[in-house]
Amino acid sequence: MLVHTIKEVRDQVKEWKKEGLTIGLVPTMGALHEGHLSLIKKAGSCCDKVIVSAFVNPIQFGINEDFDKYPRAIEKDYKLCSENGVDILFNPDVKEMYGTNEQTNSNNFTYVTPPYFYVDKLCGASRVGHFDGVCTVVLKLFNIAQPDKAFFGEKDAQQAIIIKKMVKDLNVPVEIITCPIIRSNEGLALSSRNQYLSDEGKKEALALNKILTNINNCYLKGITNVSALKETAFSFLNNHHELEYLEFFDADDLSEKQTADNNTRVFIACRVDGIRLIDNKKLGE
Amino acid sequence: MLVHTIKEVRDQVKEWKKEGLTIGLVPTMGALHEGHLSLIKKAGSCCDKVIVSAFVNPIQFGINEDFDKYPRAIEKDYKLCSENGVDILFNPDVKEMYGTNEQTNSNNFTYVTPPYFYVDKLCGASRVGHFDGVCTVVLKLFNIAQPDKAFFGEKDAQQAIIIKKMVKDLNVPVEIITCPIIRSNEGLALSSRNQYLSDEGKKEALALNKILTNINNCYLKGITNVSALKETAFSFLNNHHELEYLEFFDADDLSEKQTADNNTRVFIACRVDGIRLIDNKKLGE
Repeated sequence: MLVHTIKEVRDQVKEWKKEGLTIGLVPTMGALHEGHLSLIKKAGSCCDKVIVSAFVNPIQFGINEDFDKYPRAIEKDYKLCSENGVDILFNPDVKEMYGTNEQTNSNNFTYVTPPYFYVDKLCGASRVGHFDGVCTVVLKLFNIAQPDKAFFGEKDAQQAIIIKKMVKDLNVPVEIITCPIIRSNEGLALSSRNQYLSDEGKKEALALNKILTNINNCYLKGITNVSALKETAFSFLNNHHELEYLEFFDADDLSEKQTADNNTRVFIACRVDGIRLIDNKKLGE
Repeated sequence: MLVHTIKEVRDQVKEWKKEGLTIGLVPTMGALHEGHLSLIKKAGSCCDKVIVSAFVNPIQFGINEDFDKYPRAIEKDYKLCSENGVDILFNPDVKEMYGTNEQTNSNNFTYVTPPYFYVDKLCGASRVGHFDGVCTVVLKLFNIAQPDKAFFGEKDAQQAIIIKKMVKDLNVPVEIITCPIIRSNEGLALSSRNQYLSDEGKKEALALNKILTNINNCYLKGITNVSALKETAFSFLNNHHELEYLEFFDADDLSEKQTADNNTRVFIACRVDGIRLIDNKKLGE
């Protein structure tokens, strides 16, 4: 069922709750790929009913980011959802989510603001306000769908960590389930933004996974010094790449690691021919 | 039933929801008086079960405010709750609500941040961060108790307006009910902070209600110019009083009024012998 209004979701959820059914929510920005489908399948295996939201959320995009050109493909998304047992695909427009405010901002709208310690690094450092927008829309979706469990990909690992922190801090009655990154056969982490890449760009983009895999191999051989592990990255980079960050943080609380251990996650962001891509890997796996 | 843990509230709420019972929440800071009891009675008349929270919320107090000396009277509160049909009195400690962070702040904790337009005036102007703390704790309590309806006094009218805005912006599935200010026979708006007043202070404190009543009488006689209405206040003030603000705002969206109308609320804050008191009145009633 494809629905566009909050009321339709609420009415259906109310019926399901009356019947004692459990609900899984998969929040997405649409343009679904195998990564999203892995979340949907996981939700279907844990919950009686599955709601997928497909909403390109304007308040998590910066002023010079790709909100307008971000891929939208609701018909294809709906087909994929139908084939994968999704009960509701929720595809609201911006007005349905944010009302008639011309430009929603902190002057006229209530925001959820994640802790500064979690957002002043990695993607949050270059995308100021991004995670405020993410937390705000995710809490709205939780309040609309009232799921028992919600499913997020480890591809956006900082996002998943911040959402878990929000849920804990605000006592949100939703269990957060994270699912592993899905990769192409060549190793590229799936992302809706991969559509922006040329064929050559797709080859060059493999560097991200190669860097992470090589770092993990070095770690498994006993190298734990973070500076030494970072040094190994540069041999994979050429003039198609513009490295934004390569950082080692605690996988739960994003504190910085000087020495890598089994709770360390390595995060990378790199522009490939101008297209910004991210990837990450937990060490020791 | 007096409970101190989130888990106890959640377990009981889950049972009630299974039985299809509706829940009313009355969030308070304890030290209950007739104002709170009017909210509790209203909740009892609308909902099958009533939860009262009594929690002096540290994150809504400024560094030089009265957090430590704010009145606490949980035994008396429990007696009043029992006498008034309350099903759960929830009295958590700070650690239960905020964990082991020594000092909860925006560096280490997820906050709910109401719109700047709503908080840069009235009590928000002098109490920086106050309404962030209020919205954050209220959303936590909503997520813990999952009420159908929540009850707030019009005594804290700015707070009630900001909470309604939060509920709308974040799609919180709770209906907000506001209840009229309860006053002493002499007209003083009931407040837990009235305990700080001497007998003489209590007499001087009547000036707040006198000012508001007189303004409303002038309005009912046809005076709508806000400057003229403000002028009428000064004859009620003497050297016991230190006026912080006397302002005219829209009763729903807190936009400023130059000309008073039936959707105007008049807000006053005044120190009486050093004790900060607030009051307000909707014009035309």
